[in-house]
Parts: sequence; C-alpha cells; structure tokens
Amino acid sequence: MLKKVLIANRGEIAVRIIRACAEMGIRSVAVYTDADKYSLHVKRADEAHSLGDDPVAGYLDPLRIVNLALQTGCDAIHPGYGFLSENARFAELCEQYGVTFIGPKSSVIQQMGDKTAARDSMRAAGVPITPGSDGNLANLDEAIALATEIGYPVMIKATSGGGGRGIRRCDSEAELRQQFPRVISEATKAFGSADVFLEKCIVNPRHIEVQILADSQGNVIHLYERDCSIQRRNQKLIEIAPSPQLTPEQRDYVGELAVKAAKAVGYENAGTVEFLLTGNQVYFMEMNTRIQVEHTITEQITGVDIVREQLRIASGLSLSYRQQDIQYRGFALQFRINAEDPKNDFLPSFGRITHYYAPGGPGVRIDTAIYTGYQIPPHFDSMCLKLVVWALNWEDAVDRGQRALDDMRLHGIKTTATYYQQILNHPDFRQGHFDTSFVAGHPELLNYSEKRHPSAVALAIATALAAHAGW
Amino acid sequence: MLKKVLIANRGEIAVRIIRACAEMGIRSVAVYTDADKYSLHVKRADEAHSLGDDPVAGYLDPLRIVNLALQTGCDAIHPGYGFLSENARFAELCEQYGVTFIGPKSSVIQQMGDKTAARDSMRAAGVPITPGSDGNLANLDEAIALATEIGYPVMIKATSGGGGRGIRRCDSEAELRQQFPRVISEATKAFGSADVFLEKCIVNPRHIEVQILADSQGNVIHLYERDCSIQRRNQKLIEIAPSPQLTPEQRDYVGELAVKAAKAVGYENAGTVEFLLTGNQVYFMEMNTRIQVEHTITEQITGVDIVREQLRIASGLSLSYRQQDIQYRGFALQFRINAEDPKNDFLPSFGRITHYYAPGGPGVRIDTAIYTGYQIPPHFDSMCLKLVVWALNWEDAVDRGQRALDDMRLHGIKTTATYYQQILNHPDFRQGHFDTSFVAGHPELLNYSEKRHPSAVALAIATALAAHAGW
Repeated sequence: MLKKVLIANRGEIAVRIIRACAEMGIRSVAVYTDADKYSLHVKRADEAHSLGDDPVAGYLDPLRIVNLALQTGCDAIHPGYGFLSENARFAELCEQYGVTFIGPKSSVIQQMGDKTAARDSMRAAGVPITPGSDGNLANLDEAIALATEIGYPVMIKATSGGGGRGIRRCDSEAELRQQFPRVISEATKAFGSADVFLEKCIVNPRHIEVQILADSQGNVIHLYERDCSIQRRNQKLIEIAPSPQLTPEQRDYVGELAVKAAKAVGYENAGTVEFLLTGNQVYFMEMNTRIQVEHTITEQITGVDIVREQLRIASGLSLSYRQQDIQYRGFALQFRINAEDPKNDFLPSFGRITHYYAPGGPGVRIDTAIYTGYQIPPHFDSMCLKLVVWALNWEDAVDRGQRALDDMRLHGIKTTATYYQQILNHPDFRQGHFDTSFVAGHPELLNYSEKRHPSAVALAIATALAAHAGW
Repeated sequence: MLKKVLIANRGEIAVRIIRACAEMGIRSVAVYTDADKYSLHVKRADEAHSLGDDPVAGYLDPLRIVNLALQTGCDAIHPGYGFLSENARFAELCEQYGVTFIGPKSSVIQQMGDKTAARDSMRAAGVPITPGSDGNLANLDEAIALATEIGYPVMIKATSGGGGRGIRRCDSEAELRQQFPRVISEATKAFGSADVFLEKCIVNPRHIEVQILADSQGNVIHLYERDCSIQRRNQKLIEIAPSPQLTPEQRDYVGELAVKAAKAVGYENAGTVEFLLTGNQVYFMEMNTRIQVEHTITEQITGVDIVREQLRIASGLSLSYRQQDIQYRGFALQFRINAEDPKNDFLPSFGRITHYYAPGGPGVRIDTAIYTGYQIPPHFDSMCLKLVVWALNWEDAVDRGQRALDDMRLHGIKTTATYYQQILNHPDFRQGHFDTSFVAGHPELLNYSEKRHPSAVALAIATALAAHAGW
C-alpha cells in the first residue's frame, strides 16, 4: 500500500483526496501557491509545501512537483482533475523518476488526449463513434467535402482540446469556411497544436458518461452512468446518476461499451467514457483519463469510494469489487455551486465568504474547501462547492435538492444556487426529460430574485475577523 | 396529505422534521421557549411561536401546544423524541381536539409505556421476555421470593420508567432489600408512579433494537436492526446499523419478532422494539413509541426516509415499501456528540460555540441545530450534534468515523468527540466485538489529550460577534 501521497491540486478535490488518504492511513502532502496560503487543503494535509508566489504557475510545473514528491519521500502523486491531470508529459516524468502517477500510463493519456487517435482506437474496438474525419483534416477543402458527404451541422474540434474548449458548430458551408481558421487559431493558442478534425454534430443529444475502474491485473468494471446534459456552453452545471432517461437495456449497453473502450486501450485506474445519445443511437465522445468533478454522484448510488479505489489500484492491488458486486440504488444529483452571477451572464463573482452554513440531514453530501471568512482567489475555476443530494427515487431526490439548496447559506458572493432551484422547478426537469439544449432553451429561468437573509451585514463584519485564523 | 405540521420539539430533531416537511411541501410551525429564541429550528421553520419564558415548561405543556396547533391551523403535531413524545395524555388530547398526533394511538402509547403491561402483551404474542414478575410487585417479600427462584442478579425497574432511568441491579438479597425502596422512591418522584417490577438481569448483553414502520391499513415492516451496545450508564453513545455481531439468522429472527410485537398491539407509525441479546438468546426489553435519536443510521443503510414515512402514515397513506423492498447496504455509525467533559465524569459543558466546522465528503451526514456563535442553553439534553458515517464495509466505516471526527471543529465547549476516537481505536471495537459492558470495562480509554487547533482564541473573539445574528 502507498505510504505517502503528494496531491498536485487544490480546493475541494485536494480535500477529497486528503480525506481518502486519512481514512486509509496514507500520509498526505499538500502543495500550494501564495494565492492558496489559507486554503483548506493546506490546513488539512499532514504536510504542505509552497510552489511559489505565482498563483497558477506552480500547479502547472511538472518538474517542480515531481521534485517535491521525491524530496518529501512521497511514493505517489495524485493529480486530481484539471491542471496536470491529463498531461502525458507529467505522467511520463513520474514514470521516469519512479514516482507512481495515480492514473493510467502516460502512453494511454497521450492516446486518449489525442481526439483523432482516440476515435481511431474506439473504431478499431467496435465502439460506435460519430461520423467524421479519419484522423486530422489536411485543409479546409477536405473539411468541406466531408461535411457535404455526412451532412450539416458538423463540429470542428481541436484534436488536443478538452473541457468543452476548441469546439465550433457549423450549420452551413459558409459557417465552416468562417470557423475553420478560428478553431485552428484557438487550438494553437490553447493547446499548442493546430490539428483539428470534423465530426457530425449530434443535435441536442443527451450527455451520458460511464465511470470505469481498471486495475493493473486487467480487471475492468463500470459503476454505471451519469447524465450530464444540464450544461451551459459545454460546462456541466447539474449532474445526475443514474440517468432518469435511460432504459435498462441502454444502461447495460453503455456500461459494456465503456468497459470495452477501457480494455481496448489497456486502461488502468479510474476513468470516464463520455457518450452522446440521441434517440437510441450512442456515440463515443471522449475518454477522460482522471477523476472527474462529478464522481461523487456515482459514489452515492453505488457506495463505492472511487478515490480509495484509485489509491488501491496505484498500490498494485486488484479491484475491491467484481462487476456483479456493483449495484446502484436511488438517484443522486450534484449541483456545482459556482461563484458566478447567473443574472449577469454568469460573470465570475470572487470575493470573501462572509457567512457559510453547510446544509445537512438525510441524503446530503458536501464537498468543498470554502469556509466562513475564506477569500476565493480570482485565479482559478469558479466552482466553490459541490452539493450532492440522494434519495431512493427521482422525485424525492429533486425535492431534496430544493430543500438542501434552500438550507445552504453562502453570503458575500453571487452563486448559481438559486438558478439551480429554478431548473429543479421546471416541469420537464422534474419529469426527467432534458438534453444538452435545456439551459440555452430556457432563458426565462434566469428571471428570479435572490432571497435576502436577515443580518447578512452584521455577520459579515464579525466573520471577516475570523478570516485567516488557523483551522 | 398533511398541509401544516406543528413540531413540538427543539434542536436537531426539530430541524430534521422541518427538513422533511420542506421536502414534502408541508408547512412547518416551530415552537420555542425564551431559552431557544436563537435556535436554528426557529430560524428554519415557516413559522415560529413562543411557548413562554420558562426554558422547559412550555415544551411539556400539552394543552398549550394543542391550542397553538389549532390556532395556527395545523392539521398535525410531530412530537419528536423526549418531551411529550411518549405522553399518552398528550396524544389523547390531540385525538380529542382533532389534531393528528404523528405516532401511535394514545392507548398504544399507554400500553407500551407501562412496562408490565408491555411484558404481558409480548408474552401473549409469543415474543420472548426476560424471566421476571407477572405484573407489578406487591412488596419486598414477593421480590425476594421471585429473585431466589430465577437467580441473581436481578433488576428492579420502575413500571413507568424509560430512557435508562428508574433501574437498579441487585446481585444479592441484601442488595435487593436495599435497592427496592430506593427504586420505588425514585419512580414516584420521576414518573409519578410507585409501581415496580422485577426481571432477571441479563449480564453484559448486547443491546439490539429493530426499527419498524406500520401504517393505518395494518401493514407492518421492519428496517433491520441497530446495535446500541456502546452505552454509558444506560445512555447510548455510539449506535451502529446493522449490528456487526449478528448472524443472518439472528437478524431475520429479531426483525420478525419486532413485526410480531408491533402487530400484537395494533401499532401505527414509526417505532422501535428493543431487545437484549446474550449468546443466541433474545429477550424483549421495551418498545419506544416514537422516532429515535438513532433513526439516522437506519436511513443510511436502507435509504428509507423514516420521518417522511411518518408524515405519510399520519396522512393516512399506506407505506411506500413492502418488506421485500427493504434492503440494507453497508454499515453506518452514529456518534452522539455531547457537550460533556468525558475526563471530568462526563460533566455537562454548556456554553458558546466559538467555532464550528461541519465535516463533509463521502459517507458523512450531520444532524445538528448548532452553528458558530450558538450558545448551548443549560436546560436541555447535552447532545449537540449527531455525526453519522457510512461505508460499504465495517472496517471502512470505522476508518471513516475516525476521519470525520478528526475533520470536525467544535470549539468553545468540551465534547465527547475525542473519546469516541479512543473507542474506535480499540481492537475489540474494530473487530466488531462489544457488549453493554464495553464503556465501563475500558476506563483506560479516558486517558487522552485533546488536540489543540491553532488560533482557537482569535476565532472565538471574532465569532462571538456573530452570535444572535439572523440566519
């Protein structure tokens, strides 16, 4: 079993991993930049080490982090999500220096990170992919010819893209001519590669993804699916497990496809295979070779601690469960509480949390690194809290979500919480009918007034004094 | 379905019931005495009404509460636990005034509250009871004759007792002569009745209790058992579901006995049948005709929301589940975090919470009415927070308990949290072997030092200012 793990991340996912280490008797080492000096992951880890004064650079510096792991006697690094988690060079560096990278082999990260290589391996494995280019596009003419053949709309995608960036939809040849150079330019800037490819655009699909676990002995299981169709501009807002809109046959089918995909590439550790569904058609979209933000809801329905399994797999142990041991129960919803102002085009709303009260009671789980007095730094992602609710049936889970969102207090910043209550109230959502067009298709849900809780100002004064005090 | 419910209680159980009402679209009415003016249940209910300036009297005033329910247009009263929850006269008053009492009929409360009547009905139903007196004891001579017959040790118990009070163990005739008048005196003072009875003392039993649900159509199901053997002076400290020390056969047997017991008395709503186990012998102890503090752990393993079922049953609906729908998964532990100083004979430690941080992450549930700045009033029970953890297997659940207790911050008062960590560390506990003698048998577990977290004093100053601000 691993003895000491460096967590190359920050915020709630770093706290999540520290907690798993604590439960398993593994020592945890946090890293932080100056902007994160007062972060909860720094306070809760067994050790914490500085990555320097630049707010972000340290978290993206592979060599510095691997060196720190070696210096502090860590036998492994957990990359979390974002930052270096899908950076094949970082995983390779770990391999070179004999530090276990908690994730798949660098070659697999490389292969799945290259969207055209991933499509190629899925096609070869018999996993259905969207009609589109075989590999990267040579030029605009090839794109136009292919689009004419498979029909509009089409998507132009950066081969090295991810997280919803480097993607443009084209509804006509005119748009394709316009967007093609833009995606190349964006891809070059954001991902350091000008490679792009073309796919048929699946209009208003449901976004369904399957959590898988694979050990170094070649055992692969899936933990059923998540429905992440509630998105805004390709960013997930509310995730649900299992999907309330799959038949048992579809559920089994996507589960089997995900296991097949993972086996085809020799996958190891936790991963997610993302699919687009339209009607009864299923298309492979991409594989995320890391823990995901929304792993929580899969934990709630299956009872499996995914981070614990990651640490076990990285220790060389085999999976704790066989496929037949995995059963799902009830429904879980995760609300990504973002420090954003939905009524102002979701503009980030960083600042000090003047008052925070965590909702509790039955079926409520909170993953966060915030606390009363915490100053949200402006340099990172705006997600500040994951509120997860669970109940035995769909209607009760939705009602529980409403209650828990109501119960929470998060003063000092604007958040997406009340907007999510609007979504929960919509009859289509309550009936479990939604696809990726739901958010864009319901701008009227932005018409609401924020509840005012009394004495927020009095609390603000008092709790500001508590900031930076030790935890 | 009920439309508006008055909650005749305070603290965490009032908050728990308010949350269930909110999820079901039922309006909630809180009541409070002056000592509870700033309590969370007052802030979170849809309405709150004063019961006057005496800290306790209002909560124990049946007529005042029923009147308030009528005045505020409530169709039902939820009594929670403690206070009037097992007061047959209160339930009867509700029946008279046409307000639904959320619990069984007053006659059933009466019958099960009278320990000798309860023993009689269980004997008649074929539920095994401990050897002892048929009904109340006439005098000391009868007690001595019976004790000689069934063998020492024996217990002298107040017929109207409960909650571990009005009970004395006698190991010899000399002790029996001494204790007999004392129990009578205590019973008269505490319960207003001099009736006592005698039972064989089951030495170092395990305390196993079964949660049942019964609707007004006569359907009765059980939700499996809880192991409440970790007690100090008959007060439960840590509760576990299911018991890690029952065979599947024993589990089924106690479940069936509990359903038989409930059916025998025409039980309705949620209730708990308590048993003592020694070896393979099972004895009925008592039935609690109300929601229990430890209902949470049953909810965690079965997924059933017990308070929601209570509200459904009281609305005249049938149970949401048949027995075959009830499945338990994993293990849950509840830690009663009491405002007490274990190192000072568990002396109550009331005062202001200068800093509170709720643990979170996977498998953690919190039920509490405290918050940073809250002043714990000295007039009530010392339990201030219920920390519940869950995991798929016993060892992981124990490790999670350790982690969650570590993660929690509760400054300003002494609590039992660190003492519970000592219990979790004990090899017998970790192996799931313990009976009701565990706490008394391990005084060495009280040898520990409290962890000091930095800057607790700085936090105290700042957060004291936040007290009494609105929520």
